[in-house]
Amino acid sequence: MTGISTASFPMKGGDGAYSYANNSSYQREGLECAEDLIKESVAEKLDMKEFISSSSSPKLFTIADLGCSFGPNTLFVVENIIHSVELKYHSFGQNQEALEFLVLFSDRASNDFNTLFRSLPSDKKYFAAGVPGLFQDRLVPKASLNFVHCSYSLHWLSKIPMELMDRDSPAWNKGRIFYNHSPDEVSEAYSAQFAKDMEYFLNARAEELVCGGLMALVVPCIPDGISKLEFSDFKFLDLMEESLKDMVDVGLLTEDKVDSFNLPLYQPTPVELGALIERNRRFSIEKMQRIVRPARKGYGLQSLISMIRAIWEELIQDHFGTDIVDELFDRLKKKIAESNLSSLEMVADMYVLLRRKID
Amino acid sequence: MTGISTASFPMKGGDGAYSYANNSSYQREGLECAEDLIKESVAEKLDMKEFISSSSSPKLFTIADLGCSFGPNTLFVVENIIHSVELKYHSFGQNQEALEFLVLFSDRASNDFNTLFRSLPSDKKYFAAGVPGLFQDRLVPKASLNFVHCSYSLHWLSKIPMELMDRDSPAWNKGRIFYNHSPDEVSEAYSAQFAKDMEYFLNARAEELVCGGLMALVVPCIPDGISKLEFSDFKFLDLMEESLKDMVDVGLLTEDKVDSFNLPLYQPTPVELGALIERNRRFSIEKMQRIVRPARKGYGLQSLISMIRAIWEELIQDHFGTDIVDELFDRLKKKIAESNLSSLEMVADMYVLLRRKID
Repeated sequence: MTGISTASFPMKGGDGAYSYANNSSYQREGLECAEDLIKESVAEKLDMKEFISSSSSPKLFTIADLGCSFGPNTLFVVENIIHSVELKYHSFGQNQEALEFLVLFSDRASNDFNTLFRSLPSDKKYFAAGVPGLFQDRLVPKASLNFVHCSYSLHWLSKIPMELMDRDSPAWNKGRIFYNHSPDEVSEAYSAQFAKDMEYFLNARAEELVCGGLMALVVPCIPDGISKLEFSDFKFLDLMEESLKDMVDVGLLTEDKVDSFNLPLYQPTPVELGALIERNRRFSIEKMQRIVRPARKGYGLQSLISMIRAIWEELIQDHFGTDIVDELFDRLKKKIAESNLSSLEMVADMYVLLRRKID
Repeated sequence: MTGISTASFPMKGGDGAYSYANNSSYQREGLECAEDLIKESVAEKLDMKEFISSSSSPKLFTIADLGCSFGPNTLFVVENIIHSVELKYHSFGQNQEALEFLVLFSDRASNDFNTLFRSLPSDKKYFAAGVPGLFQDRLVPKASLNFVHCSYSLHWLSKIPMELMDRDSPAWNKGRIFYNHSPDEVSEAYSAQFAKDMEYFLNARAEELVCGGLMALVVPCIPDGISKLEFSDFKFLDLMEESLKDMVDVGLLTEDKVDSFNLPLYQPTPVELGALIERNRRFSIEKMQRIVRPARKGYGLQSLISMIRAIWEELIQDHFGTDIVDELFDRLKKKIAESNLSSLEMVADMYVLLRRKID
């Protein structure tokens, strides 16, 4: 185990008004766009001959969903993978009865596994287990996985780089909660943490996947060639930063409290992401393409704020306390309404299919 | 999957005053008594030669704890099993580095897996996963387990026999919540449900354990030759029944509500338990002995009521509603104090070690 120390950044649990389970339609849309890509990946790239010859009887195909969270999105993804594998297995003239699936739902121990487990359908056709842990660590035994899925998760850092909170460091992120308006040293500290997290992630998966096994990633990126200052995803974060600062101005928060808060989030460019995978050397890149979302009008203000709150509430609460949560999101809502910023038009979610190289 | 429909009977979650995690010292004492039995079982009965020759590299030893619940008892048991297996592995001159452990913590989906996962030590030497499900169903892939542990769980029935709630049946359990003062038809319905549950349980485990694999059970029994009317464990249940009836008398509960409540619990005699295992034919009985608890003074009244409440509160609340819980346990506490019944002197927890027969 790498022994990475980490805070926990869970999505909002349960099934209440601001729960992640009820406010994850943005991610759902991305996953629906990735659905066909996963189907194609399995059809074209999954090595079924090797699986059929090496596996015992009945054949066991093990899928891990890393950063699974909970709620309807979680089940939607694994059912698509299972269906795709069954189709391919069938096309090889194999008796489908003899194929068993094990699905490992993995996320940090702070994830709401209770809600996930209670939402599993009683007629599911796979064995299910939850695996608590940080995916930069080893999670499961060696060579025990046939297929790994990890979407909308790798942009969460395992921890905040320490230098951001060090007053004597050039990377001290005073007055900021993110890196888009910060000195280069801050961006570099974020980028270095992301690179380290990716390296640990890839090394752990290289141990856990069978040789030739596939890994499908969906990673929110910042498009190549667009400045981080222009990137609309980050403009929401600017408004959150402004709201926090306003609360300092009216005495609801201390400056220190805001100085010591940094979002544990990094979005690489596609080129940067590809370079990290190449540098690791244990996976070949089989596909790497931008996920095209259908044109849409944008979310209503209330949906938008609910989605943002489902993601950020626990983290905000953890640092600033419960009392300020409603106030902060009310202020953020007003700022979003004034800004006319209601869609994420420049989003660049990348679909990446990797294959574990043969040793 | 057997498709057994079931209500859920979770222990009280979280870590509050009446939580199971903080009120399971009775079970803990039994597990401590079983600790040496498990050590001996592994030392004498585990087929290490077969494991070493058949398993790939690194060797993977998979343990399932069924009805794991959560709290300190859960971890104590698996650490003992792991340590015992390591000792035996070592004694065969194997390099311990190459041995990996996977522990599957399994319980109904209503179990508090969140608390369990958050209590896992960060320096644990095993991979951990939670498996939600009813252990009368298949839980994991075929031949994927080396060792199964199941303690203080098999006496929970998968469901209440329907005839207990059928006014037209001779097994209608009017005015009773259990079978110890009921007509024979009621006892027989309970006993038949237990037999069916055991059969499903054994069949499912026979599929999941490797041939020759071991299964250690701790089953609360009623001693052979003691009448159920004399059995002190059941006297607590009598007092709960009396408390409920008193609440009917003063108009706090309806008679119907008590008539339709039956405890989902059955304690076989050791002879009955052995006969069910023999009848199933898929396991050999390697050991079967009564667990001897050290002589002790008995629990204080408050500990005793907290332990009982940790076990029964969720079930009571589910049937009768939240409002009556405090009232019921206050009444029960008074009755226990008056009865002078503070120990469980006639307890007969049986330790049973089974081996999956070679097909």
